[in-house]
Amino acid sequence: MDTYQKIMVAIDLSGESEAVLQKARLIAAPNADIHLVYVQEPMDNIYVGIVPQSAAFSGLGDLEARLADEIKQKLSALGEEFNLPIENLHILHGSPATEIHRFANQHQVQLIVIGSHGRKGLQLLLGSTANAVLHGSGCDVLSVRVGATS
Amino acid sequence: MDTYQKIMVAIDLSGESEAVLQKARLIAAPNADIHLVYVQEPMDNIYVGIVPQSAAFSGLGDLEARLADEIKQKLSALGEEFNLPIENLHILHGSPATEIHRFANQHQVQLIVIGSHGRKGLQLLLGSTANAVLHGSGCDVLSVRVGATS
Repeated sequence: MDTYQKIMVAIDLSGESEAVLQKARLIAAPNADIHLVYVQEPMDNIYVGIVPQSAAFSGLGDLEARLADEIKQKLSALGEEFNLPIENLHILHGSPATEIHRFANQHQVQLIVIGSHGRKGLQLLLGSTANAVLHGSGCDVLSVRVGATS
Repeated sequence: MDTYQKIMVAIDLSGESEAVLQKARLIAAPNADIHLVYVQEPMDNIYVGIVPQSAAFSGLGDLEARLADEIKQKLSALGEEFNLPIENLHILHGSPATEIHRFANQHQVQLIVIGSHGRKGLQLLLGSTANAVLHGSGCDVLSVRVGATS
């Protein structure tokens, strides 16, 4: 039994993504195949109830496109910093836990590494993605505690 | 940044505990301090609703004591197999997630390794301990998928 050869690092592109990626590197096999994944959630998913009808809310589509550019740049910078080949950087669209599971299954990933926020309030909400990923995952999951105040 | 030096492996003493411990060994630093923890839940906690009044249910205390002996033996055998010093084997009492968190905080553990069942029904129930441990943990958590049917 060897350590993890195929790893998927799911990040939210916050400042803490580097710490999550670093942990993945630490426990990966020397020549492990590390994939960096960001899941872009449709804005009308996130703001359902706030944006009454997304189609009627002019400018939302444009904003989403600009966001996509920003995400691409941030992901590329992170990939460069950690020497990951460009084909190992992925932007997916949909619900984070669902897309992460789908990707892990399709690529026969052995370990999913994800940041987990331990705080309360908003941070707890963010941390719920880690919980959702763990639930029903077909492979091992390393939840890296980020933003720890203790 | 080095890999994990102080690791807590929370096991349920099922046949899958070895696989969980093996994963911990794989990602641990060469001289890591690995603690093996089993949380014995009081039987009247587990069977609340089935055993109407635990105090009135004669023989339960005796059964619990015999269980404790069995647990001790199994834990020792596992500790020997993985060359863990006897002082690194721990039997705690109470609610699993609460006790695991308490132990991790007290011993400044860097990583909790726990088995996670991915199946449905009863297995899903068992897997919920991993979720509860993740929720509010002060350190990283590696959930090892055990009993995978896929």
